[in-house]
Amino acid sequence: MESTMTRRLISALFLLLLITVGSSATPTHWRKRVREPCNKLVFYFHDIIYNGHNAKNATAAIVGAPSWGNKTILAGQNHFGDVVVFDDPITLDNNLHSPPVGRAQGFYIYDKKEIFTSWLAFSFVFNSTQHKGSINFAGADPLMNKTRDISVIGGTGDFFMTRGVATLSTDAFEGEVYFRLRVDINLYECW
Amino acid sequence: MESTMTRRLISALFLLLLITVGSSATPTHWRKRVREPCNKLVFYFHDIIYNGHNAKNATAAIVGAPSWGNKTILAGQNHFGDVVVFDDPITLDNNLHSPPVGRAQGFYIYDKKEIFTSWLAFSFVFNSTQHKGSINFAGADPLMNKTRDISVIGGTGDFFMTRGVATLSTDAFEGEVYFRLRVDINLYECW
Amino acid sequence: MESTMTRRLISALFLLLLITVGSSATPTHWRKRVREPCNKLVFYFHDIIYNGHNAKNATAAIVGAPSWGNKTILAGQNHFGDVVVFDDPITLDNNLHSPPVGRAQGFYIYDKKEIFTSWLAFSFVFNSTQHKGSINFAGADPLMNKTRDISVIGGTGDFFMTRGVATLSTDAFEGEVYFRLRVDINLYECW
Repeated sequence: MESTMTRRLISALFLLLLITVGSSATPTHWRKRVREPCNKLVFYFHDIIYNGHNAKNATAAIVGAPSWGNKTILAGQNHFGDVVVFDDPITLDNNLHSPPVGRAQGFYIYDKKEIFTSWLAFSFVFNSTQHKGSINFAGADPLMNKTRDISVIGGTGDFFMTRGVATLSTDAFEGEVYFRLRVDINLYECW
Repeated sequence: MESTMTRRLISALFLLLLITVGSSATPTHWRKRVREPCNKLVFYFHDIIYNGHNAKNATAAIVGAPSWGNKTILAGQNHFGDVVVFDDPITLDNNLHSPPVGRAQGFYIYDKKEIFTSWLAFSFVFNSTQHKGSINFAGADPLMNKTRDISVIGGTGDFFMTRGVATLSTDAFEGEVYFRLRVDINLYECW
Repeated sequence: MESTMTRRLISALFLLLLITVGSSATPTHWRKRVREPCNKLVFYFHDIIYNGHNAKNATAAIVGAPSWGNKTILAGQNHFGDVVVFDDPITLDNNLHSPPVGRAQGFYIYDKKEIFTSWLAFSFVFNSTQHKGSINFAGADPLMNKTRDISVIGGTGDFFMTRGVATLSTDAFEGEVYFRLRVDINLYECW
């Protein structure tokens, strides 16, 4: 009786040891990572491109253009080569006139001749009662797709060291002057 | 006999407990990380810079230049200050005419007066049967070195949340219009 | 006696099993992460903007500007829209003439009309006896704040796969031509 129990215990110990060693020694990149966000946020931001007539309201300006372009009209060929710097208000809903919770600051480039597509790198710089700090983004933005995923490459303050994926969707656009993006931020690394 | 076995078991339990607690409580940045890629990929991409005469074939254009430069000829002083936007085909081999598996989209800047060196940020945007999604890159590219390492800063789709290092090498160049880069991507964080 | 010990052992085993499974199965983003740097570094870098008269000493040049700007004078409206490419010496102390340990290479944009604020993406490219490799940075830089946090988004060589936060502070500036930044780098992921 005693030895049977003891043997069972020893077996259990070895099994446990195997499980323990197996799971603990697994290097970071082999460990199963759960694709469950540790934080989810939704924002809107509003881009008003300077066109030579809207200096007061504009939040963005063309600062680079190909040889066939200029700085007040987005270039032909789907704006290929235009570089736009922006400082756009971030709001919690889709109303341009809602109180901003921060600014979206950075730049985008139009990077394809055949269709509208862009590449962007920017930060959300928060300064509200809810959020302090910044979230940094980079990635390709194929504008003709309903939703586009870019990377959250880092963060500071409340978003210290964060990483994740942000899904962009064009919520509205008016001519070539105003557009509004909805950003669904899913953070998968939180500190 | 009984008490000896029991004592051994208790010792084993404590040892096990130590191992378990020791390994599990180690914070992420102290844990040994294995420098073993979880994914390896090799691609080529092809950059044809617009020079005023090749509008049809060009995949890239100068969009920013220093005061001494212009938009159709790369500037003197090792092109210092030239900003180039690109939308280059990605191929599996070094043949420009192979079927592209995606597009390399982003920009590079020449950033040194004394020698050729650049800084780039771009995405590989895949749309093939093998790969969907994107990989985002950023880093310094000292062109005169045979190989140059840049960072994989994120990814989406098949490359969700990935990180790693990409090694660039210039596979060919023709004058100042065409160059081909080989990219050896080593991913060390896979989800 | 025997059965009491055995029961205790079994209880201990189950408890241990719970602890083990509990801690090992915790996904990466739920695990407690210690905000303790695995590496701390301090550097200075020195930016001399080309103004049309300092070609020999300049380490940076305006390469993009809004329609109201030009390439030799930083634009009005707090330089909004100016894009500057740089290749700045990195030193260990705040002396411009100290032997550089590497170069800070990349670009910054001024991105707000109302106050000075910028967004930057660049690399520290080291080539000294102490450090080989590169550190890549990106983030918003609200210049009027005493300290500003940006993200360390990756690294190569000695800084393979690193991540962290860098705190920028303006150590000195002279007119609109020279400024010196102190960078306190805190790395939280080291490989």
